[in-house]
Amino acid sequence: MTSINQKSLDLHRAHRGKIAIATTVPLATREDLSLAYTPGVAAVCEAIAEDPEQIRNLSVTGNAVAVVTDGSAVLGLGDIGPRAAMPVMEGKCALFKALGGIDAWPICLDAHEPDDIVAAIRAIAPGFSGINIEDISAPRCFEIEDRLQDLGIPVMHDDQHGTAIILLAGLINAVKVTGKDFTQLRVVISGAGAAGRAICRFLRGIGQGDQAQSVAEVIVCDSRGALYAGRPELGPVKEAILQYSNPQNRKGNLQDMLTDADVFIGVSRGNLLQADNIRRMAKDPLVFALANPTPEIDPDLALSAGAAVVATGRSDYSNQVNNVLAFPGIFRGAIDARAPRITEKMKLAAAHAIADYIPDPTPTHILPNPLSPLVASKVAEAVILAAQNQ
Amino acid sequence: MTSINQKSLDLHRAHRGKIAIATTVPLATREDLSLAYTPGVAAVCEAIAEDPEQIRNLSVTGNAVAVVTDGSAVLGLGDIGPRAAMPVMEGKCALFKALGGIDAWPICLDAHEPDDIVAAIRAIAPGFSGINIEDISAPRCFEIEDRLQDLGIPVMHDDQHGTAIILLAGLINAVKVTGKDFTQLRVVISGAGAAGRAICRFLRGIGQGDQAQSVAEVIVCDSRGALYAGRPELGPVKEAILQYSNPQNRKGNLQDMLTDADVFIGVSRGNLLQADNIRRMAKDPLVFALANPTPEIDPDLALSAGAAVVATGRSDYSNQVNNVLAFPGIFRGAIDARAPRITEKMKLAAAHAIADYIPDPTPTHILPNPLSPLVASKVAEAVILAAQNQ
Repeated sequence: MTSINQKSLDLHRAHRGKIAIATTVPLATREDLSLAYTPGVAAVCEAIAEDPEQIRNLSVTGNAVAVVTDGSAVLGLGDIGPRAAMPVMEGKCALFKALGGIDAWPICLDAHEPDDIVAAIRAIAPGFSGINIEDISAPRCFEIEDRLQDLGIPVMHDDQHGTAIILLAGLINAVKVTGKDFTQLRVVISGAGAAGRAICRFLRGIGQGDQAQSVAEVIVCDSRGALYAGRPELGPVKEAILQYSNPQNRKGNLQDMLTDADVFIGVSRGNLLQADNIRRMAKDPLVFALANPTPEIDPDLALSAGAAVVATGRSDYSNQVNNVLAFPGIFRGAIDARAPRITEKMKLAAAHAIADYIPDPTPTHILPNPLSPLVASKVAEAVILAAQNQ
Repeated sequence: MTSINQKSLDLHRAHRGKIAIATTVPLATREDLSLAYTPGVAAVCEAIAEDPEQIRNLSVTGNAVAVVTDGSAVLGLGDIGPRAAMPVMEGKCALFKALGGIDAWPICLDAHEPDDIVAAIRAIAPGFSGINIEDISAPRCFEIEDRLQDLGIPVMHDDQHGTAIILLAGLINAVKVTGKDFTQLRVVISGAGAAGRAICRFLRGIGQGDQAQSVAEVIVCDSRGALYAGRPELGPVKEAILQYSNPQNRKGNLQDMLTDADVFIGVSRGNLLQADNIRRMAKDPLVFALANPTPEIDPDLALSAGAAVVATGRSDYSNQVNNVLAFPGIFRGAIDARAPRITEKMKLAAAHAIADYIPDPTPTHILPNPLSPLVASKVAEAVILAAQNQ
């Protein structure tokens, strides 16, 4: 066991986790009790009964987000179940508070069927102003998120959209650094899961309306190579990806697809690529090797093979693609705007706010430090503006 | 609107409720992030995947209770729904923290059928060490609580058992004050709902095993008078109450039943009784008029009519029967004992601990002040001992 693992275990054991409840009103005297609880609280209940929106002004609900999982796709660990997923959910709640000022509570569901997960989230929804879906495996995560968009509060599956938002932010600045034209980019994605699908849609401008800007081409590969129309046993999710990818219906493996590509985006598994694969890409290739903890290609190897910009999911290399940059500000903004859902335009605004946070990007500085305290408020401002403009 | 109502509204608005999330670990540096979140958190997830019980040591779950309602029977306000119920649930969470050191989170369910409520609670259970059911209307609350006793963590409907526990504690001391014999008491309960049923069962020693001590007789009345075998349209819940009440199968209204009774317990509605009704009771009658905000009889009137001890649910009279005395300590004890459920013996131990907290009870001092900071720990100690002895 590495030192960081032992340190993390020790930290969690010493604090029994990472979050706690704090009371925000005095509870020392009978009068305190009569105001915070009975009999005074009845007036507060009646005010909400009369106007349900008042729950946002008169209770923690106005600032509360549920971080919900079934534990079926946790980090690189897979389907470890709702209990073992708790430390990730609780960590996310701690970051919601530290960076977004949001009171988030982890909900680890003993439920597996999309029907049951949807029912549980609908059931608990009255007490929250937002739902962050987390670490639910594909393709169930797509259906679950889609079916909950009518809930009246923002519901976002962060593994899809958070990653796509940071990726786009990084790509915007990588393009700036290399002088490429975003709309001319040819992109290859390794990974046809939740993140790969969301990145593909996002880079193609799906649902973004007037402000949509699309790269020229995206090809999505899974472990069997490029997704193309007519490939046997593709399944409905990968079929759907073809609506906005591989327009020339090219066939071949990941390495074939990389020839002359401008951008490689890996959301798959470690050590897939060699220096040769980078050398066959177009001039100044942009490499986003996001598999964790082992990237699709060693960052130093990619640089030595000519990559102009390399980003990973790791904190020990420059250009870390970390969802922490997005979710606190996105939910902060969506809640403050009282938006009923998080639209593609709001996500796009978040991506640009993150990119713009770096006034003068360089090859080793295309993204802010994940803990920069001001990123979330910049993202929130942009998301509020986007919510108001639609 | 009275001043207390306006003050309570102002308090809730100023603080946007009464609880918040606090982070308990540092989150300022990249190393902090790598320990609290990825990549270090993976080791914590794996430790729980290997031994699910470790969730109690390594996450907030070990100290977390869900306060769950559907908002169908809130205070005296009735079925106001899950949103309007939030201020009560949040208040309860604040009291769990202030008095029991427990991290409780309010869960307000948009669900009505017992099947759906049970399913939602089962779904969210992995993230909690206890479930406090609150303000769910009878008879659904009985079925819901019963069906959840196999969950592996304590599940208690506080409106039933909390009230019964405090009531018994008060009665123990009232008996001490008046020199009556507990086992000879003749008790009349007004109210055949959740609290009335639970008090009746509790005073009759149902499920308490060896330590069970029962009063001589309980008669339960609803708005139509005494429950008796053969009364038309009684329904299954009230039928069941007859198994441990009204052994002589007496018939008549509440006032009739009070003749020669030792104890009146009101969990019904205000202004049911007059001085005359108290005068017809046995010598030194004990009056627990718990309807809120208006007791079944005016406390001063009851005293002037000869009541030896009067208790109410109100904070502005002596002898307040307030659930706050019980639930923080009961859940604190049950969680610390890692008890899979809260048994009748544990509830009995809690009642005695609350009674024993007053070494020398007097007619105006049979119960501790609800905010006495040491009550919860005394209750918890007693509950732990009871859990270990079974």
